Amino acid sequence: MRPSPLTGGNVRPVHPARRGLRRLPRVARACEDCGVRVQKSVFECQVGQTEWVQLKDRLLREIKSEQDSLRFYYLDEVAKQKTEHHGVAKPMDFTEPLIL
Amino acid sequence: MRPSPLTGGNVRPVHPARRGLRRLPRVARACEDCGVRVQKSVFECQVGQTEWVQLKDRLLREIKSEQDSLRFYYLDEVAKQKTEHHGVAKPMDFTEPLIL
Repeated sequence: MRPSPLTGGNVRPVHPARRGLRRLPRVARACEDCGVRVQKSVFECQVGQTEWVQLKDRLLREIKSEQDSLRFYYLDEVAKQKTEHHGVAKPMDFTEPLIL
Repeated sequence: MRPSPLTGGNVRPVHPARRGLRRLPRVARACEDCGVRVQKSVFECQVGQTEWVQLKDRLLREIKSEQDSLRFYYLDEVAKQKTEHHGVAKPMDFTEPLIL
């Protein structure tokens, strides 16, 4: 069974996040190279063991561990099929500039 | 096995999100009544079947389905134990006012 890691990159919406907001696109790019963005900071990647080791290494190098967090979930086939989505089907383009 | 749903509430950081930002605290409150917030918009709730039906119903009533999204993952015990967290251990208090 191929692992199906899900990663959430945490970008904080308060003052210190201004730096985090600059890192999110790089985290997103790494995840999108192997999977899809399903919400603003939630990605689903279906990867084999070798690819996962590389992706995880790349992600951990992209974040500042004292400011950001990454959380990885491993979904098997059953969990993947039970996943439910409600509301807008497709996340917006979060690579667009923020209008605050 | 008790289901362990994980829910991600999507609040979009661009113009239309101003309304989403007002809804997130209510979504968060519902999730935190049954579980913990592990990232800005990621919550983990360990609930039985009845409790889950009630929580899901409450969450779906809180969102505007044409603007927001909720994504539910069901983690079994194995997936739960494989979960990895990197970086800052505890999310910030996102109920605090945003300073932009």
